[in-house]
Amino acid sequence: MRLSEPGVLSRAARALMTTEREGVADFDENRLAAIVDLYVRTGIQVHSPGYMGRQFSGTVPLAGVIDFVSSVVNQPSTYYEAGQLPAMAERIMADELNRFIGWDPGGFAMVTTSGGSLANLTALLAARNRAHPGIWARGEPGGRGRPAIAVGADVHYSVTRAAGVLGIGETQIVRLPVDAQGRIAVRLVPELLAAAERRGLQVFCLVASAGTTALGAFDPIDELAAITARRGIWLHVDGAHGASLLVSDALRHKLRGIDRADSLTWDAHKMLFVPAPCTLLFYRDARDAPGAFRRSTASYVSDEEPDAHCEFDSGDRNLECTKRPMIMPLWTLWAMYGRVLFAEKIEHLCRMTQDAHAILIDEPDFEALHRPEANILCFRYRPAGVAEERLHRLQLRIRKEVRLAGRFFISKVDVQGAAALRVVLMNHQIGPGHFRDLLAEIRGTGDRLLRDGGLD
Amino acid sequence: MRLSEPGVLSRAARALMTTEREGVADFDENRLAAIVDLYVRTGIQVHSPGYMGRQFSGTVPLAGVIDFVSSVVNQPSTYYEAGQLPAMAERIMADELNRFIGWDPGGFAMVTTSGGSLANLTALLAARNRAHPGIWARGEPGGRGRPAIAVGADVHYSVTRAAGVLGIGETQIVRLPVDAQGRIAVRLVPELLAAAERRGLQVFCLVASAGTTALGAFDPIDELAAITARRGIWLHVDGAHGASLLVSDALRHKLRGIDRADSLTWDAHKMLFVPAPCTLLFYRDARDAPGAFRRSTASYVSDEEPDAHCEFDSGDRNLECTKRPMIMPLWTLWAMYGRVLFAEKIEHLCRMTQDAHAILIDEPDFEALHRPEANILCFRYRPAGVAEERLHRLQLRIRKEVRLAGRFFISKVDVQGAAALRVVLMNHQIGPGHFRDLLAEIRGTGDRLLRDGGLD
Repeated sequence: MRLSEPGVLSRAARALMTTEREGVADFDENRLAAIVDLYVRTGIQVHSPGYMGRQFSGTVPLAGVIDFVSSVVNQPSTYYEAGQLPAMAERIMADELNRFIGWDPGGFAMVTTSGGSLANLTALLAARNRAHPGIWARGEPGGRGRPAIAVGADVHYSVTRAAGVLGIGETQIVRLPVDAQGRIAVRLVPELLAAAERRGLQVFCLVASAGTTALGAFDPIDELAAITARRGIWLHVDGAHGASLLVSDALRHKLRGIDRADSLTWDAHKMLFVPAPCTLLFYRDARDAPGAFRRSTASYVSDEEPDAHCEFDSGDRNLECTKRPMIMPLWTLWAMYGRVLFAEKIEHLCRMTQDAHAILIDEPDFEALHRPEANILCFRYRPAGVAEERLHRLQLRIRKEVRLAGRFFISKVDVQGAAALRVVLMNHQIGPGHFRDLLAEIRGTGDRLLRDGGLD
Repeated sequence: MRLSEPGVLSRAARALMTTEREGVADFDENRLAAIVDLYVRTGIQVHSPGYMGRQFSGTVPLAGVIDFVSSVVNQPSTYYEAGQLPAMAERIMADELNRFIGWDPGGFAMVTTSGGSLANLTALLAARNRAHPGIWARGEPGGRGRPAIAVGADVHYSVTRAAGVLGIGETQIVRLPVDAQGRIAVRLVPELLAAAERRGLQVFCLVASAGTTALGAFDPIDELAAITARRGIWLHVDGAHGASLLVSDALRHKLRGIDRADSLTWDAHKMLFVPAPCTLLFYRDARDAPGAFRRSTASYVSDEEPDAHCEFDSGDRNLECTKRPMIMPLWTLWAMYGRVLFAEKIEHLCRMTQDAHAILIDEPDFEALHRPEANILCFRYRPAGVAEERLHRLQLRIRKEVRLAGRFFISKVDVQGAAALRVVLMNHQIGPGHFRDLLAEIRGTGDRLLRDGGLD
C-alpha cells in the first residue's frame, strides 16, 4: 500500500501519537524522528528535479533557520512593540523592492499579508472603500452605479472570489478577453468599460496580472494604466507570481508601467524562494493603505497617544491581528546574499523554460500552447490519430498517472476550454535532460492509456 | 540610545546587510549570528517572567523544530497532493479537539486559517451566504430585511470590522450590552433582537466570545444558543483565546453549550502555546464550510475527476490558496506529549491569575475590575487622593513607562470607558513574587508620574 493513500497515512500518523492519557508523556526522540521522517517522505518533494508542478519551491535552506528562530522568539509583526526587527525589516524590504517598482520613496506603503489571495482581497477592499465608502458604513454603495470590477479572463480565482466576499457580487465582474498569449487584449478594454457603464455598473478597479497563473502571461500594465488613469479607476496588479521579475535587470521590462499602478501583490514565497506564505502588498499612495480597514481597531492594540513607534504598527492596515513575522526569512536572505542571488536564479529559470519550449516544439506529438514569458509552460500531448474529443481527458489522466508514478510532479490547467499539462520550473537544478525525461514519461503514459483503454 | 528606538534599530539592521552589488555575497556566519542576535534581543521577550502582556506566548521549543522542517520541505497544506501529512494532521487534530466540543464526529468540519481575525471573517461569510446568497451573486441581499449581525459589546474588533469588509455595514451591527463581568447580558438579548427586527434588520448571526480580549470573559453560550436556535440565527463563538479551556476537565464548563454553536474560532497560538498563527475554525455542520466561498476555485487547483484525495483538499473552504502547514507544530506536540501537557499548563495559568487577583484586592491602592475567569486580569492603580479625571491618563502613562523600563511588559485596555492595566499570564514560570514585583513597579512608576507632573 502507498503511504500517499489517506487511509494508510492516517494509520501511520495515528500510530505515532502517544497513548499516555493520565500524565504528560516523556520526550521520546524516536517518536520525533519518526514524525519528521513521515513528514519529509510524504507530500510534494520540492527539492527534487522531478518537481515541476507548482509555484512554490524548494526554499533557500537558511530561510528555515530563521523560521526556527521566529517560532521560538514568537514576535508577531503587527505591532512595533512586539516585533521590532520584523517591523524594521518590512520597512527595509519595502524600500529595497520599491527601487524596482519606482514609486515615490516617501509616499508609498507596504504591508505583509498571509498569502496572495488575502493581498488581492485587501487591495480590492481599499479600492472599494475609496469609491464606495457607504458599503463599509451602511452596506449600501451609494455612488453613481452598481460597484463593479474588471479583470482579465485569466485572473487568479482569489480576485473573482473577492467580489463575492466583499459584497460586490460575482455578476458585477467585467471579464476582459485575453489574446492567444493569455494577455488582456487592451484594444477591447475601453469599449468594454464603456459598455459596462451603460449597463449601470461603476467599475472602480481593474485587476491586471503579472503573470497569470495558467500561462505566466504578463498583462500590458503600461497601456492599461493609461486607460484606468483616464477613467479614475484603481489599477491593481496581481504580481503574486511575476512581480519578482522586477529584481532582474534583464526581465524587469515585463512589468513596464508598474510605477503607474495603484497597488501590487507580490508573493515572495513564489519567485523569491522563501517559505510560504510571505506576501507583500504595495500601495503607490500610502494614504490608501489604512483605507482598507478604516482604521478600525480597539483600545487593547492601538495607542491613544501615538509615539514614534506607532508609525511602524500595521494593525490598522492588515486583516490579521496576530501576524507571523513572515518578512524575516526574506530580509535575512537579502541581507546575507544580496539582490543578485534572486536575479540570477529567476533569469536562469526563465531561460530554462525557453529551452524547454524549444525542446517541446521539436517534438511532433506535443503541442506548445504559448511562448513562455516566465517560467511557466503549458502544452498538450497530442499524438497523431487521437480524436479531438479525447484529448481533454487524455491530459487529465496523464497528469494524474505521472503524479502517482512519483518520478515527476506536474500540474494541469484549462487553456481555452480544454485541459493542458503545465510545468513551472522553480528549481535551478533542473536541466534539459530532466525535461526530456518528463516528455518521455508523458509519452509512455499517454500511449499506455490510449492502448489500454484507460481513458474510458 | 536604545536599540528599541526605530532609528537606532534601522541603522543596526541596515549595517548588517551585504554591500555586494555585482555578485552573490559569500555566506558569512558572523553576519548571520549578528542578525539572529539582533532578532532575539529586540521585540517582546515572551520567555521572560516579566512578560505578562499579550495573548501570545513563549512556545514549546519543539514547535520551532517542526517549523524548521516545514520551512524546508515547504508543503502548503491547502491541497492533499502537496501537503499530505499536514492534511492528515488537520483531520486528526480536528477529531481530537472535537471530543471536547461534542459535535457529531461524522458531521462536523475544521479548517485552519491564518489567524483568528480571518477565521471570524470566514465564519461570518459562511453565515452571510447561507442567509443572503444574493450578496455573493449580485451584491444584493434580497431577503426580508437588511443583513445584520449581533455581537457582544466587548467582541474582538475583527468581528465588527468584518461587517465592514463583507458589505454588511457597520451600522448594521446590533451591540449587546455586557454585565459587570464583561459577559453578554442574556436577559436583554431577546428584546434587542426583536427591536432590531422592527427596525428592518435581519440578524443572521450572533457572535459570542469565549473569552473576550479585554477581560477574558466567557459569554453564556448555552443560554445564547437557546435564543439563536429559536430565531434561526447562526451562533458563532469567537473562542480565539478561551476555546483551549475545553481541553481541561476542570475548566471545560466555561464553554457550556458549545455543542449547540454553529461555528467556533480557536487559536492554538494563544492557549495551546504554538507559534503564531495556528487558528482552527470549526463548523458544526460540515456542509456549511464550503458555503463561505461557494466552491469558487479554478482548474489549476481543482480536480475535474475527484478522487479519494480531494476529500482532504481545503482550497474551497479557506480564503488562502497557498497556506502554511500551521497544524504541524500543534499536532507534533499533541502526538509527543498528549493532552495533559496543555491541560496542566492552562489550569496552572488560570490558578495563578486567581492568585494574582487575591494579591491585588489586598492592596488598597489598586482596584480590581473583575473576577478573572481565565488568565487575563484587568485593574487600575488608584492611590488615594488622585482626582478621577486623572486616573485614565495615569494608567496609560504607567503602562508606557513600565514597558520602556524593560523589566515588565503589560498591556492596557479601556474598561467601561476608561483605561485599565491588563496582564495576561501565559508563562507557567511566573510566580506570585513576579506579580508582587510588578505591582511595586507600577506603584513606583505611578507615584513618580504623579509627583513629577509627568501626566501633563
